[in-house]
Amino acid sequence: MKLICSKSNLLNGVNIVAKAVPNKTTMSILECILIDATGSEIKLLANDMELGIETVVEGEILEKGQIALDAKIFLDIVRKLPDNDITIVTDSSLKTNITCEKAKFTIIGKSGDDFSYLPSIERIDSIVLSQFTLKEVIRQTIFSIADNDNNKLMTGELFEIDGDILKVVSLDGHRISIRKIILKNHYPSRKVVVPGKTLNEISKILSGDMDKDVSIFFTGKHIVFEFDKTVVVSRLIEGEYFKIDQMLSSDYETKVTVNKKELLECIDRATLLVKEGDKKPIIISISDGNMELKINSTVGSMDEEIDIIKQGKDIMIGFNPKFMIDALKVIEDEEIDIYLVNPKAPCFIRDIKEKYIYLILPVNFTTVA
Amino acid sequence: MKLICSKSNLLNGVNIVAKAVPNKTTMSILECILIDATGSEIKLLANDMELGIETVVEGEILEKGQIALDAKIFLDIVRKLPDNDITIVTDSSLKTNITCEKAKFTIIGKSGDDFSYLPSIERIDSIVLSQFTLKEVIRQTIFSIADNDNNKLMTGELFEIDGDILKVVSLDGHRISIRKIILKNHYPSRKVVVPGKTLNEISKILSGDMDKDVSIFFTGKHIVFEFDKTVVVSRLIEGEYFKIDQMLSSDYETKVTVNKKELLECIDRATLLVKEGDKKPIIISISDGNMELKINSTVGSMDEEIDIIKQGKDIMIGFNPKFMIDALKVIEDEEIDIYLVNPKAPCFIRDIKEKYIYLILPVNFTTVA
Repeated sequence: MKLICSKSNLLNGVNIVAKAVPNKTTMSILECILIDATGSEIKLLANDMELGIETVVEGEILEKGQIALDAKIFLDIVRKLPDNDITIVTDSSLKTNITCEKAKFTIIGKSGDDFSYLPSIERIDSIVLSQFTLKEVIRQTIFSIADNDNNKLMTGELFEIDGDILKVVSLDGHRISIRKIILKNHYPSRKVVVPGKTLNEISKILSGDMDKDVSIFFTGKHIVFEFDKTVVVSRLIEGEYFKIDQMLSSDYETKVTVNKKELLECIDRATLLVKEGDKKPIIISISDGNMELKINSTVGSMDEEIDIIKQGKDIMIGFNPKFMIDALKVIEDEEIDIYLVNPKAPCFIRDIKEKYIYLILPVNFTTVA
Repeated sequence: MKLICSKSNLLNGVNIVAKAVPNKTTMSILECILIDATGSEIKLLANDMELGIETVVEGEILEKGQIALDAKIFLDIVRKLPDNDITIVTDSSLKTNITCEKAKFTIIGKSGDDFSYLPSIERIDSIVLSQFTLKEVIRQTIFSIADNDNNKLMTGELFEIDGDILKVVSLDGHRISIRKIILKNHYPSRKVVVPGKTLNEISKILSGDMDKDVSIFFTGKHIVFEFDKTVVVSRLIEGEYFKIDQMLSSDYETKVTVNKKELLECIDRATLLVKEGDKKPIIISISDGNMELKINSTVGSMDEEIDIIKQGKDIMIGFNPKFMIDALKVIEDEEIDIYLVNPKAPCFIRDIKEKYIYLILPVNFTTVA
């Protein structure tokens, strides 16, 4: 194999596919990036068996062939080479020379035959949305997936299509995040659970451009994202997702309208008194026109008041401050509405059109400072 | 005690003195910052018994007094408060209220009586240089102090004053860094060894301003840095520093003139093949007009050539690439001169006026790629 491409194109491509290289694996071929120049285009591939990424790099193929190179070393070499044309040449013994200007690296590759290609997926069913929208919706929901594997379904996000609505849901047993997106077209109904890891990695690759689209294809076991010159294939999580509709209710006893930034900064301040792992709640007392926030820990105490608009009953309720912060951080509205029922029932932060719903379970508190 | 000061002034002051708060200590009073409002000014103090910092914060003292507060908590609180006036009030039970707008923190302080003040130092002997110069000279030498305590003197830097010359030296047994600074005045001769930790912390506090001066005072056991409204007092390292003059020689067999950036980038590229802890040398072959750099590791090999101007004999010599990189990074010249004798003798990177001298010992190499 012999090929030439510019450093910037190659670096961009390697950075993209490197997202599918596992940190730890016992199969050393999975730690590799495959350079596939057997066809008419230079393709880079990586695949950790759950998630696979393929991208096309512009360049010239002087001699067809393929080679698998250790992803970390290859990325480091490409990154540190001068900003000029890079030539990659392999021989039959898998020795690979990577040259750029007067610098020449020699590393030993692995045979491309051992590499597991992406599963070939029939691309029929698809939806289209902008890269910006997909990147945003992941950011606005990914924080409330479960961080452990106890329940596999909780480690993914529900993507539910119904007509022209895409609903994205994540939950971890303490909170639920729901975002609704209006699509340009109507599509057949569909429900899949996409692994959180896939979404995390894909959001790093997406440009976040409003004018560039992503096509998403579904099959029984896989989801495929196609954008720019890149294809991302991921397994789906199997099983039936939680029935969240029965957890949502529009009844409330108290409705609070509050400036989001003020509330976020106040809760953020309060958390500095809480050491990691310590589960001190922030206690919120709501009365006419006033919200008082208190936290009490071994380190000290904090007490702060915020002006609000209140409808309904007074209430005192405790929350894990981190859960409140996570939700408030990803809401773009300046003023938000919080709906409460009683100190044991979940609170809802949602807009009128329900483009977003954040449900947070309260925590018990016994003593109040 | 009761005082008021702006958040920005207080934060700046706390950030400065926090540099003298030890990370780990068994004496909890050392983890504190003392707010001393017993006099006419608000002073902040921290002291880890080796290094002490005192700074004055502008503000208003409404009731005299003092309190020692946990540095980490205090810094976190000040950092997260709104950008407005902060009021600090203590009562006889050491309970401390820190309020700003509607936010109120309550923490328990420690008695200021337990706090160990900075030693009072007679300030007679002093030299003056700009904050910029001091910050630069620390950056240009601090990397070659020893990172372990086996030889206490190697963990510090020699500050030697002779007439209007300040010479700063650091060495770790494998290399020596020397910088000479011309002072505005002549001073009596003096030699002290300043702990590396002190220099690291002080360089974080220095503004790096060319127009602002630092006064440095010396006593038998201490060094004092005075700048802006801050005083830093540090113990000196006792003992006689190494006689470096006999290690320096101006004889050479080979002189190489090379573009610094090119050489640095080339060695930097080579190191990506070396895993941390692996002691692979970079092998440099110098011939007429050409420097070839090679590295060979379990990962692969690199080979690169650089144009040079050579005087004297050809030579092949091996170096720890990190030591070369450390020195090259802090030299501002575009073209540098490297002086070599033989593969067992140290190389020197120095300018004609010897404003800087970097000595690096070579390493043995047996096989060449």
